[in-house]
Amino acid sequence: MAKIGYFDDSKKEYVITNMRPRRPLSNYLWNELFLMEIDNFGFGESWLRISPEERRGLIYGGEASRMVYVKDRETGEFYDINRNYQNKQFDKYECHVGIGYQQLVNEYKGIETTFTVTVPTNGHAELWKLTAKNTSDTVKKIDLISYCRPAANVTTHLAYGHARYEESLDGLYYYHDAFAVDHDYSGIYIKASISPDSYDLSNINFKGTYNTWANPQGLSNDKLSNKGTSFDDSYCGALQFALELNPGEEKVIYVVVGISTGLDNAIELSAKYLQEGVFESTIAAVKREADDMDNLYIANTPDEYINTMVNTWLKRQISLGKTWGRVCSKGFRDIMQDTAGLAAFDGKMAREKILLCLAHQRPNGNPMRAFDPIARTPYYDGAAWIPATILAYLNETGDLSVLDEVCPYFECDESGTVFDHMYRGLRFLLDNRGARNMVLWGGGDWNDSINNTGYQQKGESAWLSIATVKALTEFCRICEIMGGKEDLIAKTKEEQAVLKAAILENAFEGDQFIYGITDWDEKVGSKENVEGQTYLNTQTWAVLANMLDEEGLNTVMNTVEEKLKCAFGYVQCAPAYTKKDEHIGRMAYFIPGGYENGSVYNHGVAFKIVADCMLGKADTAFDTLKLISYDNPANDDSGVEPYVVTNMYLGPQDPYRPGFSYYSWITGTAGWIYRGVTEFILGVSGEFTGLKIKPCIPSVWNEATVSRVYRGATYNISFKRTGSYKLIVDGETMDGCIAPIFPEGTTHTVVCEF
Amino acid sequence: MAKIGYFDDSKKEYVITNMRPRRPLSNYLWNELFLMEIDNFGFGESWLRISPEERRGLIYGGEASRMVYVKDRETGEFYDINRNYQNKQFDKYECHVGIGYQQLVNEYKGIETTFTVTVPTNGHAELWKLTAKNTSDTVKKIDLISYCRPAANVTTHLAYGHARYEESLDGLYYYHDAFAVDHDYSGIYIKASISPDSYDLSNINFKGTYNTWANPQGLSNDKLSNKGTSFDDSYCGALQFALELNPGEEKVIYVVVGISTGLDNAIELSAKYLQEGVFESTIAAVKREADDMDNLYIANTPDEYINTMVNTWLKRQISLGKTWGRVCSKGFRDIMQDTAGLAAFDGKMAREKILLCLAHQRPNGNPMRAFDPIARTPYYDGAAWIPATILAYLNETGDLSVLDEVCPYFECDESGTVFDHMYRGLRFLLDNRGARNMVLWGGGDWNDSINNTGYQQKGESAWLSIATVKALTEFCRICEIMGGKEDLIAKTKEEQAVLKAAILENAFEGDQFIYGITDWDEKVGSKENVEGQTYLNTQTWAVLANMLDEEGLNTVMNTVEEKLKCAFGYVQCAPAYTKKDEHIGRMAYFIPGGYENGSVYNHGVAFKIVADCMLGKADTAFDTLKLISYDNPANDDSGVEPYVVTNMYLGPQDPYRPGFSYYSWITGTAGWIYRGVTEFILGVSGEFTGLKIKPCIPSVWNEATVSRVYRGATYNISFKRTGSYKLIVDGETMDGCIAPIFPEGTTHTVVCEF
Repeated sequence: MAKIGYFDDSKKEYVITNMRPRRPLSNYLWNELFLMEIDNFGFGESWLRISPEERRGLIYGGEASRMVYVKDRETGEFYDINRNYQNKQFDKYECHVGIGYQQLVNEYKGIETTFTVTVPTNGHAELWKLTAKNTSDTVKKIDLISYCRPAANVTTHLAYGHARYEESLDGLYYYHDAFAVDHDYSGIYIKASISPDSYDLSNINFKGTYNTWANPQGLSNDKLSNKGTSFDDSYCGALQFALELNPGEEKVIYVVVGISTGLDNAIELSAKYLQEGVFESTIAAVKREADDMDNLYIANTPDEYINTMVNTWLKRQISLGKTWGRVCSKGFRDIMQDTAGLAAFDGKMAREKILLCLAHQRPNGNPMRAFDPIARTPYYDGAAWIPATILAYLNETGDLSVLDEVCPYFECDESGTVFDHMYRGLRFLLDNRGARNMVLWGGGDWNDSINNTGYQQKGESAWLSIATVKALTEFCRICEIMGGKEDLIAKTKEEQAVLKAAILENAFEGDQFIYGITDWDEKVGSKENVEGQTYLNTQTWAVLANMLDEEGLNTVMNTVEEKLKCAFGYVQCAPAYTKKDEHIGRMAYFIPGGYENGSVYNHGVAFKIVADCMLGKADTAFDTLKLISYDNPANDDSGVEPYVVTNMYLGPQDPYRPGFSYYSWITGTAGWIYRGVTEFILGVSGEFTGLKIKPCIPSVWNEATVSRVYRGATYNISFKRTGSYKLIVDGETMDGCIAPIFPEGTTHTVVCEF
Repeated sequence: MAKIGYFDDSKKEYVITNMRPRRPLSNYLWNELFLMEIDNFGFGESWLRISPEERRGLIYGGEASRMVYVKDRETGEFYDINRNYQNKQFDKYECHVGIGYQQLVNEYKGIETTFTVTVPTNGHAELWKLTAKNTSDTVKKIDLISYCRPAANVTTHLAYGHARYEESLDGLYYYHDAFAVDHDYSGIYIKASISPDSYDLSNINFKGTYNTWANPQGLSNDKLSNKGTSFDDSYCGALQFALELNPGEEKVIYVVVGISTGLDNAIELSAKYLQEGVFESTIAAVKREADDMDNLYIANTPDEYINTMVNTWLKRQISLGKTWGRVCSKGFRDIMQDTAGLAAFDGKMAREKILLCLAHQRPNGNPMRAFDPIARTPYYDGAAWIPATILAYLNETGDLSVLDEVCPYFECDESGTVFDHMYRGLRFLLDNRGARNMVLWGGGDWNDSINNTGYQQKGESAWLSIATVKALTEFCRICEIMGGKEDLIAKTKEEQAVLKAAILENAFEGDQFIYGITDWDEKVGSKENVEGQTYLNTQTWAVLANMLDEEGLNTVMNTVEEKLKCAFGYVQCAPAYTKKDEHIGRMAYFIPGGYENGSVYNHGVAFKIVADCMLGKADTAFDTLKLISYDNPANDDSGVEPYVVTNMYLGPQDPYRPGFSYYSWITGTAGWIYRGVTEFILGVSGEFTGLKIKPCIPSVWNEATVSRVYRGATYNISFKRTGSYKLIVDGETMDGCIAPIFPEGTTHTVVCEF
């Protein structure tokens, strides 16, 4: 890990010290309406969400989206502190990824410069703080230049746009007064806490048509051009501040870059954001909120990296996901899964998300795949995810009333209770079965890249059938909790048994489950196949759904170890397809090692960790977790940000970059890995009747502690290896593994021997 | 002009010698299916047209889309010959814009390198020729590296793509085998006439994640990486050739970059394109075709720049327009206008285009604005353009049969003859009149940025009414030519008189015509207005439509001189709107000086040249032409390519860059300027009965010659200023200004005294 930087847990920071990582390291700052992508150089787009479909950009991504230049007015030497386009040998060069901010720190020839960025807790602006400190013992005369590339062109019509310095704002204003645009966010403003000495509004002047970011034309002069611009396709926002710094002296400049509905609005907003203390109190507020979430579950294990991830960074990644993760591909099953994890943090929001999802379920029981009505891909798995999420919600909150909440079906006059939605979903699965009595494959299931196996309503998915078995178990548990539903439970169990038998008859090959059977009666994921012989998810879900006795499940999981393991995880299927197969669909067209076609797809690996724990294989579960973790040396050069988990590593069958991860961050993996560690390895999870404490701790750990808030009460749990399980709550030994529910606000001491 | 380069008429080349023009100078190479944009650095996208809606990219535009590097293997020094990212002091550095090719010539430290590009007369590939010559007196060991950025990702799914060196091709192949793509053009290939010594397929290796084009990582090693790549968002195609050159020795390498349907297809196509002599014969064929077109009208005036433009470059611009100009915004009236100009060059194609256009006319007579059925903007002017084009076609070809051709109406079962289409169009205009009896404005007319004045079917357009008057005159002339339509002519002239009277009553202000009256009864383009008081087109079209007697028209045109003239042309309207006006629409939201809102919109200026000529104002017409021409010193810094005419210069009311032209090339201006010079200033135009020769030559010219092919015969015309008009054809003085029609293939001597 030294290759990139280090965690500074005392500040909840990751400090990047290697400024030339394999690929730029991505990060986000956000509020409910505004999202800012920012890599270790400070680059990345930011935008306001106007509606589910429409964005209004603030800053463009790509090269030089945000820059801070320093120029020594005496020598004329200049450099940028963040991207270091000139390859200077800086004395110090760090990027601090913090909670609610990102900070670049640079020192060169006696000037220490910092560039800190945050976003307000609401509103649509970027708040910047620039400091310059003279660390030498002579007076320094420097220019500090803040720069960005504003997304000033709201429409593609350049003729609508112009930009100039506005006296009344004492800042830069970018007009784009387009005809017939359906929102009011016309203009961008840039204003600093002190008046700039000069400015540029266009790269024609600042960068120059033929210059580069290493050598912008504007910096060759004493001042920037102070020119306005119009009909421009390369707006910029550069502010030059001439500073004189005595030895040891530091000067601070705040800059706000924001979206407004007009000049007056910009004047008002910028005044608000530049008020003294706002920058600092903004960060403090974000930190406070994060601390509150972090404090709901604090783990202290012998593994520092796991502690840091669970206590801070996975929660941060989940937080981004809960607000923004599904903005672009709002999937029913994605939100359902996220919500199952969310229930432990925020019961109210979990309830809202459940209702939001169910409003996208069709009256036949099959939910939309994506919420976007145009992309009505006919996936069939949506309903299988409902019971687990409802059960997680009930277990965490005890709030049975959600089941009676009435919620509409999608695009029709019908509505039903949450319970009715859940049941109709199961009926959709149970009533749409193929010739072998397994569930129809339709347009796809979890593996949405197997998208051409079931269009003719003949292909059957073994995985979806197994997922249905699991969902029926969860449904029965919900009925049990509700009480008075014995007949329904009995009937459901009968149906479940029939489905299970069909799976075992048609999809079980002794040591593995196949993935399914296509419209053309071809097996997928079978020993009979030349490629795609073994799939990860049918094996792990066989455990999750309890498809076999323990011995059988162990056999199946041994197949996983044998066939799917690699140096940095477990591949989604093996061998990957190298031949295009129209009957399979998209997946067989992916490169071998790409996505479902044989990558280490971490969402699937998280299922395996859970499955291992369910079989009591503590060391295997832990080893699996460590294989995909950033601190596995095999992942040193994966490109992944140390402070997030990634969706996918290119699999070992990719001949060029096996193990490389192109993009991390937005993935359901974060939530599943988090639950794998907290609810399965550490084994602390809500049950309807109390807090279940059933660890599956690896042999390399002898003790650990967890502080967990459950229904408002705090459980301070100490795990101690003794060789036999015992649960002691407030000094009293429990019968079983459930700690009781306590009044909100109380704190309890729990010892769990294992 | 020296600032950018010079015309080399002997080679039909423009030679760019200034490699840092105000903006990159654009150029195109093309065939019917394949279009390549290429600026003076060699940058620009190229693509295959798969269908009217779908493109398949070959090379990406933007930075470094095509590069040629030279590396001295002994010193290690390297440079790119085309963009000169390192700012070397080259000994020679030229870009030759030729007919069918573009060539970069570079000399540095004893190596002369050329990079010539062409496209095949059909097919979808770029053909490159690289030469390296040792101009020193010692042996040189160099690497020549060809480089491009292929648009390998057909879809956005990176997982479909990989690329590698293929033995069987002895070249680079980029696979993108996507599932369910509806065309076969999956792969890109790059192959040279000799085997490369090394190669790169990804910028990860060639450029390096943090390097620049000035200093690509790949060139720091002895060889390129020879690595394949997959899941890549930054493919490249670099081939390194190690050459040893004796003093005076030159080596030639051909490279083809093309689109294929698969590897076998790539092998076949590349072999074809790399066959000996294909490169040279391709250019020869394009030149031959251009020469044939050029020879249809050769002017020799005292103005070298006008000669060059008319004889070669405007025709080239028109040629691009006729094939590609309207691909993106296929407008009825645009193609109709282009076709009127095209008739003189290619009667057959003009006929086809007329029928194509009319198939996009609705049965109510109003044509589509754009052919794209989704963008059904309700413009009302389409029909007004039909008679002029048909008349031009008849005048040029004498082919009356087109009028009886039956052609469908848009999206219905009806069809009608071309004559019927034309008449229905006029009926649409005549039958959709407002309270003042002028033609309804609808969603807009020529000025499609005044797009909110007539939605309520009340606003009336004075310009469209005047255009209708003009169209009715042309219609009557067509009827006359057809014969036997005296009743229709009489009835039409009556209707025309009524319309004319309505215009004079409601839209004439003594020295100008207003532009129209909105749905809200507000005048546009009137002295009553504070902004947009005078519009260019209503005045010039008043002349074209003969709305007043000569004195009246002169008064109106004097208003144009007084109110609309600036240092580089005539603005479209003045004063430009600075206040948004919803009743006007888009135009009033444009920046002052942008597009219709007060730019020098050259399409409109071309109308003015014609109007001046119609009033016999030869010097004014000529001065107008010279004002907007590249050789007006006021346009020195306009950004415009000297070898094209531009659509628009930002008007004088733009405070930042008045006179700047962001983009030239694709504009109807080329055709109208061409006709202004050839048919009005030089005054040689087809009439149904013969070739009309009625010059309007400026006082600075005393003589000129024109060689013109008309209906297959060549007319060698000498103009001589004598002070009185006389037309002598083959020694015989004509009565009037029409030279007779002669048998195809004959040549005739014409003297025109004026």
